[in-house]
Amino acid sequence: MGKGEETKRAILQRGLDMASQVGLEKVTIGSLAAAMDMSKSGLFAHFQSKENLQLEILEYAADDFAENVVIPAVRKPPGIERIRALVDRWVRWGAKLTGGCIFVTAATEFADRPGKVREALKRQQQEWIESLQKMADSAVKAGAFRTDADREQFAFDLYSLLLGFHYYQRMLDDTETRKRREAALERLLDTYRSTGEPRPAGH
Amino acid sequence: MGKGEETKRAILQRGLDMASQVGLEKVTIGSLAAAMDMSKSGLFAHFQSKENLQLEILEYAADDFAENVVIPAVRKPPGIERIRALVDRWVRWGAKLTGGCIFVTAATEFADRPGKVREALKRQQQEWIESLQKMADSAVKAGAFRTDADREQFAFDLYSLLLGFHYYQRMLDDTETRKRREAALERLLDTYRSTGEPRPAGH
Repeated sequence: MGKGEETKRAILQRGLDMASQVGLEKVTIGSLAAAMDMSKSGLFAHFQSKENLQLEILEYAADDFAENVVIPAVRKPPGIERIRALVDRWVRWGAKLTGGCIFVTAATEFADRPGKVREALKRQQQEWIESLQKMADSAVKAGAFRTDADREQFAFDLYSLLLGFHYYQRMLDDTETRKRREAALERLLDTYRSTGEPRPAGH
Repeated sequence: MGKGEETKRAILQRGLDMASQVGLEKVTIGSLAAAMDMSKSGLFAHFQSKENLQLEILEYAADDFAENVVIPAVRKPPGIERIRALVDRWVRWGAKLTGGCIFVTAATEFADRPGKVREALKRQQQEWIESLQKMADSAVKAGAFRTDADREQFAFDLYSLLLGFHYYQRMLDDTETRKRREAALERLLDTYRSTGEPRPAGH
């Protein structure tokens, strides 16, 4: 990685963390330059516009998410183990960001603002849902899920669970949140599990 | 209701809708006065500060939510019927606001901002979770839920489902969202339902 590319990544990482805390809308060339003690013109040379900066932060976040959440999970054997790995990785990824998952935060901010940022977010959410659906597909193929498991319903159910965890953890300061998430995941897996698949001890 | 009180309610209703669209943080005495074609000093007389305006909008929203979601549901017989009514009402309440549920939006905005607004939001979220827990309690007492149903887990599961619905509807423009929500609710109710409780036809 060249020096210019390295600097750009450092800026995007800082922008991502800032967006997770204060919202993507507040990450501008000016505010990010100030936070990094850089000149506005230096940042402008990298990103040209606020919208482009926001789009590049989302792309950077999506690459980081793929690399640290989806890809490591897909390296696990298909089925229950892969799904558990995905949930663990998702939780760890959100915890790494000061303000929690950027995609949840930005989706709330941009749901009503038509434009390139909303389009990018929507595409990323669709890709995420698609990853969850593929998890269900591969679980069926591996014999871990019932053959009639509804892949789209599974994606909805798992994403809901993660959103519930996100809100409980961020707003309620609930110490029981981890237990809730784990119980919800067991209930979810029980619904989709093929009867041939052994349950883990204690469940 | 006196004229002054009526004006104040009209301002709060507009502030609520504005908050649901652009975020509570952007609702200030200045921006709300401009949106309503009123003088800043007129609004200032009602609310004194931005923080106070935001707190009053949240309180107004909570009263409206109680009146249109929780109270009508609690008028239904305890158990499955009451829970279904709560979900239906929750969905309708969010649909009434241009930008969707204000509590979900504001929780995302204020999770990292310590202060009176976050405290108020947290208290409201706790009350909401408590309402959900009471729904489980009364369902157990009415014999609709298993006697060992975990009230806290039920609240987490139901809130997660509603959040999943919220995000799917707002970001993905998914026409199947209603079907997903209904299937998730059936799965949820099946988990907690006592074996003696008859299932609805077709499930």
